[in-house]
Parts: sequence; C-alpha cells; structure tokens
Amino acid sequence: MELNKLFKPKSMAVTGISKKNPLSAGRIIFVKNEFEMDVKVYGIHPAGGELEGIKLYTKLNELPEIPDLLVIAVKAEDTLQYVQECADLHIPAAIIIGGGFAEVGNEGLKRQEKLEKIAFDNDIAILGPNCIGVYSPPLIDTIFMPTERITRPPKGSVALISQSGGVLVDQFFHKFNQINIGVSTAVSIGNRAVVDESMLLEYFSKKDEDTYNIAFYLEGFKPGKARKFLELAKESEDMVFTYFGGITEQGKTATQSHTASLSGNARILSAALKQHLIIQPRSENELLTFLKLFDILSHKKKPFGDKEVVYGRVAILSISGGHGVICADMLKKYGLSPVKFTEKEQQEMKQLTNPVAREIASFNNPIDLTGSVQDEDIERVLEYLSQIERIECVILLILPYAPSISFQIGRRISNVITNYKKPVVFFSPYIQKYGLIIEALELGNIPVFHSIKEAVQAVSAMKNRTRIFNLKIDNTFWEDR
Amino acid sequence: MELNKLFKPKSMAVTGISKKNPLSAGRIIFVKNEFEMDVKVYGIHPAGGELEGIKLYTKLNELPEIPDLLVIAVKAEDTLQYVQECADLHIPAAIIIGGGFAEVGNEGLKRQEKLEKIAFDNDIAILGPNCIGVYSPPLIDTIFMPTERITRPPKGSVALISQSGGVLVDQFFHKFNQINIGVSTAVSIGNRAVVDESMLLEYFSKKDEDTYNIAFYLEGFKPGKARKFLELAKESEDMVFTYFGGITEQGKTATQSHTASLSGNARILSAALKQHLIIQPRSENELLTFLKLFDILSHKKKPFGDKEVVYGRVAILSISGGHGVICADMLKKYGLSPVKFTEKEQQEMKQLTNPVAREIASFNNPIDLTGSVQDEDIERVLEYLSQIERIECVILLILPYAPSISFQIGRRISNVITNYKKPVVFFSPYIQKYGLIIEALELGNIPVFHSIKEAVQAVSAMKNRTRIFNLKIDNTFWEDR
Repeated sequence: MELNKLFKPKSMAVTGISKKNPLSAGRIIFVKNEFEMDVKVYGIHPAGGELEGIKLYTKLNELPEIPDLLVIAVKAEDTLQYVQECADLHIPAAIIIGGGFAEVGNEGLKRQEKLEKIAFDNDIAILGPNCIGVYSPPLIDTIFMPTERITRPPKGSVALISQSGGVLVDQFFHKFNQINIGVSTAVSIGNRAVVDESMLLEYFSKKDEDTYNIAFYLEGFKPGKARKFLELAKESEDMVFTYFGGITEQGKTATQSHTASLSGNARILSAALKQHLIIQPRSENELLTFLKLFDILSHKKKPFGDKEVVYGRVAILSISGGHGVICADMLKKYGLSPVKFTEKEQQEMKQLTNPVAREIASFNNPIDLTGSVQDEDIERVLEYLSQIERIECVILLILPYAPSISFQIGRRISNVITNYKKPVVFFSPYIQKYGLIIEALELGNIPVFHSIKEAVQAVSAMKNRTRIFNLKIDNTFWEDR
Repeated sequence: MELNKLFKPKSMAVTGISKKNPLSAGRIIFVKNEFEMDVKVYGIHPAGGELEGIKLYTKLNELPEIPDLLVIAVKAEDTLQYVQECADLHIPAAIIIGGGFAEVGNEGLKRQEKLEKIAFDNDIAILGPNCIGVYSPPLIDTIFMPTERITRPPKGSVALISQSGGVLVDQFFHKFNQINIGVSTAVSIGNRAVVDESMLLEYFSKKDEDTYNIAFYLEGFKPGKARKFLELAKESEDMVFTYFGGITEQGKTATQSHTASLSGNARILSAALKQHLIIQPRSENELLTFLKLFDILSHKKKPFGDKEVVYGRVAILSISGGHGVICADMLKKYGLSPVKFTEKEQQEMKQLTNPVAREIASFNNPIDLTGSVQDEDIERVLEYLSQIERIECVILLILPYAPSISFQIGRRISNVITNYKKPVVFFSPYIQKYGLIIEALELGNIPVFHSIKEAVQAVSAMKNRTRIFNLKIDNTFWEDR
C-alpha cells in the first residue's frame, strides 16, 4: 500500500463541513488548509454554495479533478459511503476523523470491518478512524483543533506517530515547540484500521528523505503486527523510539476504553524492543531529551563532526559547586563515568583561570570555576578539555548569574565547540533575559538543556546512539570494545 | 545563639566595597541593599568618601550606630580582624561571603577555627564563610549576584537553606519564580562554621511565623549535628524537606572539594530521615512539585478547606485518552489508586455531557471527555465527582486546544473547587496564550502543574502530608487506618 498520497497530496477534499458551526471538525480542517497550507483544497457540502468566500462542491464527483486525499469528518453512520466513493473514484488516500468504530464495540466494530474490507480490496491508504490525521508541512494539516490554539513545532528530522491525538498535540507538538525539536511529519493513527504503525515505520524509514528519527507513542502493537514492526525497526537506518502508555494494570484499563488496544507483558516487550535496537526512554522527559539531541545530530551541519561517538567518559565543567555535585551524582545512573584529571592537568587548568577564581576554584572532575569566573576562563578551560582525547563529552553547567559572565559567553562557547568538534552538552537555566546566550548556542547546533538531569540524559542518549550505530553496522556488541 | 539579627536586622554594614570594580561582591551587596531593600545600610571603605552618591565610613566604630549585622566581603586574610571587631563592638550577627577557609585545607582550616572561637566566645551569629548569605525580603539581600541577573521568587511559606549558593539561586530561586512558589527567607550556609543547618531548622520552626515549610539542600550534615537535626525535624510543626547532593561516589568526590563535607551511607541516611518525618523527594523536580503544593496548602485561604486529607484514592478527569492512560500508568508508582465507578455513576456522568461528546466519551476511571468537550461538561462532571465521598482527590487533565473550551474554563473550575473544597490537582500545558486560564486557577489557590507526572507527584505529596500530620498528631501509623 502506497502512503505517499497521505503525506504529500497535491490536492485534498474535505467532507463534514458545517455551515452553522464554525467549530465543526470538517470546517476547521477545510479552512485551515485553504488559508494556511500549500495543498489545493476542495470543500464538499450537500447544499453547495460557499463558506468564508470559498466555493463548496455538492459531490466528490463534481470536483474539477480526482483529489489525492479525502478527509472524512462526518458521523460514523455516514462515513462508509465516502469510503466507497474513494473506491469508486480511485481516490488513493483518506483520513477518517470521527469516532464510533471499533472503540465503541458491537455495531462500531462491524462498521470498522466493512471499512477495512473496502480499503484493502481497493488499496486505499486510510488513516484512522478516530484520529486527528496528519500534519505534513508545508502541504497539509488535518488537526481539527484551530491552529491558533495548538502550538506547531519547527521543521526537522523527527517523524511522530501517535495512537493518541491529545498526546500528539500536547506531549509532542507543544513540548517540541517549547524546546525546539524539529518534526518532519506527524501522524495520529487512531484505531489504525488500515494504516498501522508498521506501515508507517516502513514508509518513514525507506521513503521519506526528511526523516532521520521516528518516534512512536503506542498503547500496544496492532494485533499480529508486532513481529513485523520489530524487524522493520532493526533494519531501519533511522533511529526508532517507542514510548508506551497502558503498561500498568491501571493504564491498561484505561486503554481498553480508549483505543481498544492492550500491550502485552511489559518486561517481554521491553526485552524485544531492546533486541531490535529500538530506544525506549524511561519517561516522557527523557524521550524529549533524546529526540532533541538526535534531531540536532541529524542536522547537515554536524556540530561534533565525526566525534559524536561517546562511550560514557565525561568531564563536567561548572561554575557552581552544587551543580557539579548534583550532576556527578547522576552519572552512574545513566551509565556514564567522570574521567580523572592528572595533577599536571589540574595545575595547567588552574593557570588558565583568573587570579581570583583560581584560588577558590576546584579542578577535580567536576571542575568548579566558582561565581568569580570570567568568560575567558570558561573559554580556555573548555579549549583545554577539548584537546584531552580520553574525554568523550563535556557537560557544561553555566549560570549566567555570575557578575562577570557577559552576553558573549554563548557565542564564545559555540565557537570553541565548532572549532574542536568535541561533543558538548550545555546546561543553562531557561530565563527569557538570557535568550541571547541560548540562541548563540542553538544557532551553532549545540544541544542546550534547562535541567542538569536532561543534560546528563542527553549524554546517555549519545552513548545509546553509539551503541546502536555499532550494532547496526557490524552487529558486534560495543561493550566488548 | 540568637539568629533574628541575621534575618531581621534593622541596620547593616558592608565591608569589602571596591571603588574601582563595580562587580566586586561587597559593592554589589552594598548598592543593592541601599537602593532596593528596607534595611538601613552603612558602607565601610578605608578611604571613606562616597560611592554612587552614598557616604562611606572609614571604620566600623565611626558609624552613627552599632549595626545589627555586618557583611564581610574581603579576602580571607583580612576577614578575622572584622570578626574581632564584631566581638569588640558587640555586633550580634555577621555574614562572611569570601572563601579561603576550611574548604581549601591547611591554613584555611586554621583560619576557620579561629573564626569559630571568636564567634562562639562572643555569641556572634556568623553565617558562612564561603556563602552568598541571606535573602530576607523586604529587609536584606546579600546575594553578591546583581539583582537583575538573578530571578527572585515571590513571598511565601518556604524557608530555603542551601549548602550551595548556585543551587539556591538557580535550582531554587529561578524555578520557584518560574512555577510560582513562595519563599519566606533563603539562606546560603557555605562552610557553616558557626550557624549550621540545625540552628536554622530550630529558628525557622520556632521563631519565624511566616515559615510553614523548610527545605534544605545539603551535601551532608555538619559532623556531630545529625542527631540534633533529626530530633528538631520530628518535633517541628513545619514540614521539613531535605534534598541531598553528593550521595554517590562520584558526587562525594565532588563535595570534598566543594564544601568539605561528606554524607554517610545513603540508605542509613534515608531511613533515619523517614523515621524523623522528613520528606525526601526523589528528584529535584519532585522537590519543587512538593514545595509548590505545600506552599499553596499553607495559604490562609485554604483551597480544600479541611478536606486536604488524602490517602491515595483518585479520579482522573481528562479530555485526551492518551493523557488519561499516561496518568493512570503513573498512579501505582506513587502509591495512588483509581476509584472504580459504578455502572450507575457512569450513566449519570454520561447524562451530564453534551450529546456529541457523550457518544465517544469514556466514563471509566480515567474519564475521557474527548476533544468534543465543552466547558459545561467539565464543570458538571467535576461537580458530580466532588460529591462522591470515596474520591479523595481529582486529577484534572485539561488541554485548551479543544475547539469548544473557552477562556472561562479556569474560573469555572476554580469556582467548583472553591464551592466543594474537594482536593483537585490541575494539569494544563504551560503556554503563554493560555495564561488567563492558569491565572484563574492560581488566583483561587488551586495547584496547577505543567506535566502529568508533576500532577501525580503532587497528589502523592498530599498523601505524604496526611501521613506525616497523622504521625505528628498521635504517633500512630496512618497505614493502620
């Protein structure tokens, strides 16, 4: 089944447009695509006429062309007739927004079976039902929430596939926007009657050139399709992430009523995912941290060149003793370890810092340059650390509160990293007035995080990435190294 | 030793003011207190003259009065003479900003011993050395970072005591400001040569009427003072929180160079803290969540009246199935359990919702009102849940993306909670354009969180609070109930 018309349609028709209710799903989708997106849109309304000055067509077969995609936003009972029309008119793809199918049982289940039969018999790529569809910029956006209500993420390397529309627009879109992670295409699969997670994994791995990372929120695999998914993930050249909801008993009860799916035994699942080189973040926050790091590393302008190989040996450079301590505490939990500096190295670093800081600073690992630090101290010590081969990654903990840190600090650090290409993960509090510092780093494609934990998680993500690449390339365990 | 002059001084003198360097610690402290704080400030400079138009005195004994507090921001070698002057002039309190004492070993250690002797012999409440001192609004602020660089938290119920100045201004001040937690007084204890964590715990428990919650960031107890601290915590009517840095081997290495302290065996420590009714959050984020909740519950206007007793039975009300699932998954980990709704209750709730949502909504626990929800649905179902006795707390997961949710939703929910006084924890994404919704809830003293995890943690905090109150009141284990 070809999915490209679902994500890259030249033309699209929308049904279920209400003339009375400006908040009806079909109307929101119709208007936002007409006004904001690049696709050619046709509105269908039994009475014809116009809406917001745009002509409406009474029937699909009256359109000036056969559209690539049909968005169906009518009641469950009226849905199948449109699916049949797709078959009759050879419309290759459809998105069904409404609920009232397998998730409500009985009649809905029968309805969904009919839908599946038409789709598979006629090779129609149907997404849903019970979903919010596709966000594929700059072409289409079938999310039935008004654009001004949601927040859209920037364009980037991550394909997002979610079994929950709410999770897609909130846990992903909003957070991606907030912490600057880029999305290639986002898909809400709903009941996944036809198009399922495996088909999407295959499409984004093999067909979509903008995607380098594929992240799934699932509440279980489609029955009978788990094996397929795992094999595709292992073969994929992209990084594959899964985050599962409904893995506890309480959560399972919830999913039964939600999307009629149920995950298997959590431990077996987890072992299978790992074996197939799928990354399973421990929390939603960790997922976001991983994706942010991987999105940056997928940029054409690789900030760390070919050095993004990290086995876990880090140096911590801080200007607050407590931050260094908290960071060091977290290393072990994330499979990382601090390198030990020689007496000579410590003395040399000491000589690189200003006379006031020097006397109270500490040059163990974590290094604490103290609140008496100046820009040059950080710059010079970072250059020094960048040249120590056994340090694979530097965690930089910078608080711009210190009186002598200037607005130049972001650019200075960014330049050092770009010169030496040593992997560096940067922590700084997220405060609007320091936006300039953060921006200087982000423009240089340096990963910036706003909690110590996230910075440490990001390094563990680089380690994970190294492991998976090694396994994908020569199938040897990197731990043997 | 009386500490009140340290936190509530009427007058204060500052030494270590540089006329050449506007970023010297003493000068920053002098100017910010003179310009921004309520205390009467005197600046000391050997050459006299003036600074920013303010008269400087050449010596302490030339001041028009004996100040309550002296801030000493000179080099280590010059510090002791000022400490001796405090003794000679009967200045009852001092804050020593500079380092170069026990934390650098040898000579520094001897210097610190001399300092201690003078302080204890003369009953001078000395804070530090090697600290950023005290923030006690509206009176004093001895933080040597310029005020415009740091972010100050609002006024509230939490006393903050930190062994790291960086942690105080960043992990606490900045985050408190961001998520709206109020501080009564904040103290950086540095090397705690004289004033230590136990003395502060006693002071804030017994002497300070604005404080209801006391939070510590420590890297170990002062040697020989652990027992005292634990006993004071158990007796205290305030809630006591500790967050420890340096509990892993990596972290310990870091603290040795930082503040010359070392925590004992982490497991023994943890058991002792629990036994003495000290709350130990598992992460910095959990600490912040707990403090936010406790700060709100300490307000005079108690949002939940006398009902803030929670043993763990919750209802989840969501408008996104996935959010409900993720929330339900987390309950068990936090010692919470979902109540089960009867068939009758489910039918009654169904009747309270609009006809479109009703057909696709789910009334299990978690309840999913779907994206077709309207304000009234949430209002009515919340009222219904508020009247079910066996529900101790409602977790409300509201995404304002849904087309029919209005800007009124925050106020409507706030009013229901205020009427019924059922404990409710609210989740909503943190997006500027929805500030109005969040503000309506915060004005009603309803706890609002911006991740599902934090909302669940907050309920576990209420449960924890119930446990500790029960134990403090009648010393019976609440689990027996």
